[in-house]
Amino acid sequence: MIILMRPDATGDEVAQVVEKLGALGADVHISTEDGRTVVNGTTEVRLRDEAPWDAFPGVERVVPVVRGGRRVGRQNKSDNTVVVVGDVKIGDGPVKVIAGPCAVESREQLFATAVAVKTSGAHILRGDAFKPRTSPYSFQGLGKAALEIMAEARSTTGLPFVAEVLDPRDVDLVGSYADMLRVGTRNMSNHALLREVGRQPKPVQLKRGMAATIEEWIDAAEYIANEGNSDIVMVERGVRGFDNSVRNTLDISAVPLVKFLTHLPVMVDPSHAAGRKDLVLPLALAAVAAGADGVLVDVHPNPYEALVDGGQALLPHEFDALMSELRLVAAAVGRS
Amino acid sequence: MIILMRPDATGDEVAQVVEKLGALGADVHISTEDGRTVVNGTTEVRLRDEAPWDAFPGVERVVPVVRGGRRVGRQNKSDNTVVVVGDVKIGDGPVKVIAGPCAVESREQLFATAVAVKTSGAHILRGDAFKPRTSPYSFQGLGKAALEIMAEARSTTGLPFVAEVLDPRDVDLVGSYADMLRVGTRNMSNHALLREVGRQPKPVQLKRGMAATIEEWIDAAEYIANEGNSDIVMVERGVRGFDNSVRNTLDISAVPLVKFLTHLPVMVDPSHAAGRKDLVLPLALAAVAAGADGVLVDVHPNPYEALVDGGQALLPHEFDALMSELRLVAAAVGRS
Amino acid sequence: MIILMRPDATGDEVAQVVEKLGALGADVHISTEDGRTVVNGTTEVRLRDEAPWDAFPGVERVVPVVRGGRRVGRQNKSDNTVVVVGDVKIGDGPVKVIAGPCAVESREQLFATAVAVKTSGAHILRGDAFKPRTSPYSFQGLGKAALEIMAEARSTTGLPFVAEVLDPRDVDLVGSYADMLRVGTRNMSNHALLREVGRQPKPVQLKRGMAATIEEWIDAAEYIANEGNSDIVMVERGVRGFDNSVRNTLDISAVPLVKFLTHLPVMVDPSHAAGRKDLVLPLALAAVAAGADGVLVDVHPNPYEALVDGGQALLPHEFDALMSELRLVAAAVGRS
Amino acid sequence: MIILMRPDATGDEVAQVVEKLGALGADVHISTEDGRTVVNGTTEVRLRDEAPWDAFPGVERVVPVVRGGRRVGRQNKSDNTVVVVGDVKIGDGPVKVIAGPCAVESREQLFATAVAVKTSGAHILRGDAFKPRTSPYSFQGLGKAALEIMAEARSTTGLPFVAEVLDPRDVDLVGSYADMLRVGTRNMSNHALLREVGRQPKPVQLKRGMAATIEEWIDAAEYIANEGNSDIVMVERGVRGFDNSVRNTLDISAVPLVKFLTHLPVMVDPSHAAGRKDLVLPLALAAVAAGADGVLVDVHPNPYEALVDGGQALLPHEFDALMSELRLVAAAVGRS
Repeated sequence: MIILMRPDATGDEVAQVVEKLGALGADVHISTEDGRTVVNGTTEVRLRDEAPWDAFPGVERVVPVVRGGRRVGRQNKSDNTVVVVGDVKIGDGPVKVIAGPCAVESREQLFATAVAVKTSGAHILRGDAFKPRTSPYSFQGLGKAALEIMAEARSTTGLPFVAEVLDPRDVDLVGSYADMLRVGTRNMSNHALLREVGRQPKPVQLKRGMAATIEEWIDAAEYIANEGNSDIVMVERGVRGFDNSVRNTLDISAVPLVKFLTHLPVMVDPSHAAGRKDLVLPLALAAVAAGADGVLVDVHPNPYEALVDGGQALLPHEFDALMSELRLVAAAVGRS
Repeated sequence: MIILMRPDATGDEVAQVVEKLGALGADVHISTEDGRTVVNGTTEVRLRDEAPWDAFPGVERVVPVVRGGRRVGRQNKSDNTVVVVGDVKIGDGPVKVIAGPCAVESREQLFATAVAVKTSGAHILRGDAFKPRTSPYSFQGLGKAALEIMAEARSTTGLPFVAEVLDPRDVDLVGSYADMLRVGTRNMSNHALLREVGRQPKPVQLKRGMAATIEEWIDAAEYIANEGNSDIVMVERGVRGFDNSVRNTLDISAVPLVKFLTHLPVMVDPSHAAGRKDLVLPLALAAVAAGADGVLVDVHPNPYEALVDGGQALLPHEFDALMSELRLVAAAVGRS
Repeated sequence: MIILMRPDATGDEVAQVVEKLGALGADVHISTEDGRTVVNGTTEVRLRDEAPWDAFPGVERVVPVVRGGRRVGRQNKSDNTVVVVGDVKIGDGPVKVIAGPCAVESREQLFATAVAVKTSGAHILRGDAFKPRTSPYSFQGLGKAALEIMAEARSTTGLPFVAEVLDPRDVDLVGSYADMLRVGTRNMSNHALLREVGRQPKPVQLKRGMAATIEEWIDAAEYIANEGNSDIVMVERGVRGFDNSVRNTLDISAVPLVKFLTHLPVMVDPSHAAGRKDLVLPLALAAVAAGADGVLVDVHPNPYEALVDGGQALLPHEFDALMSELRLVAAAVGRS
Repeated sequence: MIILMRPDATGDEVAQVVEKLGALGADVHISTEDGRTVVNGTTEVRLRDEAPWDAFPGVERVVPVVRGGRRVGRQNKSDNTVVVVGDVKIGDGPVKVIAGPCAVESREQLFATAVAVKTSGAHILRGDAFKPRTSPYSFQGLGKAALEIMAEARSTTGLPFVAEVLDPRDVDLVGSYADMLRVGTRNMSNHALLREVGRQPKPVQLKRGMAATIEEWIDAAEYIANEGNSDIVMVERGVRGFDNSVRNTLDISAVPLVKFLTHLPVMVDPSHAAGRKDLVLPLALAAVAAGADGVLVDVHPNPYEALVDGGQALLPHEFDALMSELRLVAAAVGRS
């Protein structure tokens, strides 16, 4: 951590910062840059949280240097974490595909999809019981009934499943059915929810917040890991951009970057990033080429009757074609 | 709502969209623009939610036209809503100031601040019991003990108070003490929380999400209003920008725009927008000049010992000076 | 084009808009949405430019519907444009690679790079004579001397070359040496320059502006095409994002989207997007997987002595490894 | 400048960085943070440009510390620069208003506007001869004829005038008529143009680029100042945001921030920021309250016949009302 003093900072103001840093055990070094005083207070990242440095008189700015979480950061664990969902391993090399409808709408809809994606080679089923919709007047999910349908589909197809949880009070319920819980993009900074999923044993998918920096996203993972659960899969799903040509801007750089900064697996959700089905295939292929441990794909047997996000869902035969192309690209980058 | 068909859309695909629109009661009109088919399906905004229009074969894009929520939108209630907090009215003309520390850290700290801001003319006290911190290793608030201190300060100063709520399970607890609840920026899309604050009687401050569009922010207010509580104050607190010179970019246009689109009061939080105290005064004055119904200002008797956001907190005498300047600008724009 | 009237628009105000649209030859249709008047004035995209619609009394917003340029838009030419640079074709199927140093710094540096990238299989050489640097105190390029070195390298290696032009007064000079001109990201909206490169015969690389929407980027291509030169290659090079973890956010969706909206080839510059060399390989592979017609890669024999952007330049042997991986991914997606 | 080494950086790699810093005259200090090596190479900002630090083997990131330009930065000149346009001083305390149509469309239009804004109290006239339009098919300005009309209006009203210049080849022409030149937002990084306006004697308005950071904007001013012309007025005109509710997001914080970092006057253009006339008044008042040295306001006698940006232009009587309110707010913040 570097502390830049204001041009008009007094010697006493510099001394006050230095003293506090010293009291906290930092190794302090003072230098100047173009006549400005620069205080280098290092040794440990945690010092940043130990005092409101930018509130000290005479301080202009605090400049962080080292990044990355304490528990999920690569600096403290160099080998990759492999997350196990049912009997599927994510992060062990081969590309994994999670597929299914955005929301469970009916037993028929879910089973048609589940059987199809299983046949095409998907590894994990998706289908939500609780949906975070922008408008309160949109379909909000079938709740517990959806979880029962998903569990039944698991028995039939053998595919483990992931489901979103929106409310800390629902964590036990969703966790009692699903093989993996998802914290969605709107809840990435919902700390009550992060803590709750950190206290239960099922692995967790953590979607990146709509405008979260890589560092904030990693901090959200720290909230989960700090409660004892490090089985976390990071999911890049597009960030807010300035151009409404697409729903979100897929930040493809996040894939190699998060794998560099943390030891967690990283997956990509091209369906929610694009918001339109004709972009799902190129984005999915790009994700795998960039090193993603897997992709999430929305599939629906009848998208234009979908209650949620039909515009981005592939038809089963389109998903089957995607799987074929995905296998070729995965092989080209040395993943099976 | 306008639906633009793809250049290669077939007549059958156009017909399918038109038929569905008609079945939902829309007044449909078909035209062309540069040879592309444009379907105008209007009458009611709700049609947008009734089918996944962008999933229909042949559809390229859905273009929304009318905006604004059903319950909080100006179109359905032309007079301004006045929100009453304790005995303080927000939105009735005069500028209101909410001041206090970001978090309650101790009885001494809170009382020193409360007495000072009361003396300087603040109308409502702030001081949080639960803090949403980016890092799990930062101070998270004193919880119930903080609420008791705040209630005591209310007795002493006569100032009603507002406190943040992070967890739907804490809504009753916070509501039993505070005169107003706050939903913070990280939870603007936490629907479980929005619904819970919508089901209780205390007024609610709804901070804009870090990258929420005006429309998404209004939709979040709809979640609250839809549960029966329309006593909502919208708080602009800066949005995520591309320049880290300031913590957030205060979107000053949001003040007149949200007042145009909804009937709710709009306040501004210059402290959290700027993240640095030397910008608080100019941003607060700008907010009032732009028509805000009030401002929220962080005040701390000893910012560089603050546990949260000390860098943006004013000292009591700085706050006093801000109040003087604020009164002059408020008078200049015809507000007392 | 759709025109939304304000809630308080009068009948006369609606009539004025309708009359003007009619006078311009539009097919006008009036409807209502939640009680608001919506004027649908279609037939031709050009109408948007023919009057300041949002200035008419009573108008709230103008909503564009159809997008895409008149000359470069897919709607007016369905087959792909193939751009020929020297004897290299871009956009005819196989992936093309442009490689070389960001700037020509010396004859030795350029020749070492040119011979190496030729050996590794690059198709076109890059190396700029004029550099647009953020700071006026940074190296600004060798000018004409650099162009002469590039021409000599072309003779030696047989590789055609591309060079940036910054000033409309330099277009003739650069064009007299280079096989392709580049308009850089900072000049995407420099219309004097766009017109000048549109009036000369060499093909043009048009980089996307740092915060340009897809539509503005296409409009910039229109400026060139409108002067008679349609040999344009669009280059996505990352857009401004909110997270400074990377220099720019590579907008990978732009690849399929611009190919859908225009008939022009699209290339990707992973080096400038990432700004750090460890991300160049994954981003280059992602670009090809997403359908890019080629990539631009910075290569430097001695990056840490580079005068410009050394941090993102690959060493020749790293570039050679990238070419091998690129060939595998290109083959996987059916491109040679 | 701080250089963070990668976790796997070797001692030799650290030594190479230290050696180069030393050779350039830096005062080097090495420390560690969470086990990572941090190299502090200070003394002078210019070192950042002297070597491609992020290209050195083992370097992860370069962290700038001190900001601000050498010539326009506050660190090297503590008193405010006052820019004189004709006989009008900008930056000496009182708020100055520049008003007029976006483009000169005819003698009648310009004179009607010029006389009106003079009567209402404007200090400087605006009216462009060359317009940078997004589409090549939009009106591009009357060129020299417009400059002659502006000069005639100056004789009649006594108001000096400012006009935009788009092409370095037009600098002499525009400079021979206008009292002040403007570099527009699309050309903020057009270095050929910046240099040319820096080499002539008339003062320059420098609009912020659409997605320029404060630091890049200051660097653009350095380009002008570095050629010898320091009579620069910085103009905040809104930056690109993620919400298309308004055309641009007015970054009101930029006003106090640029005044803190540089010694140059700062003005605000609420018309181009908002893109809609009903927001011009609140944004203009906010700008003055935040400390702007003046505002630019689009005025047109007949906005809905305007050829450029009519939607944001005020009618003369609306401008007159704005001037009255502006005077009150200016007085409230101690400016006449």
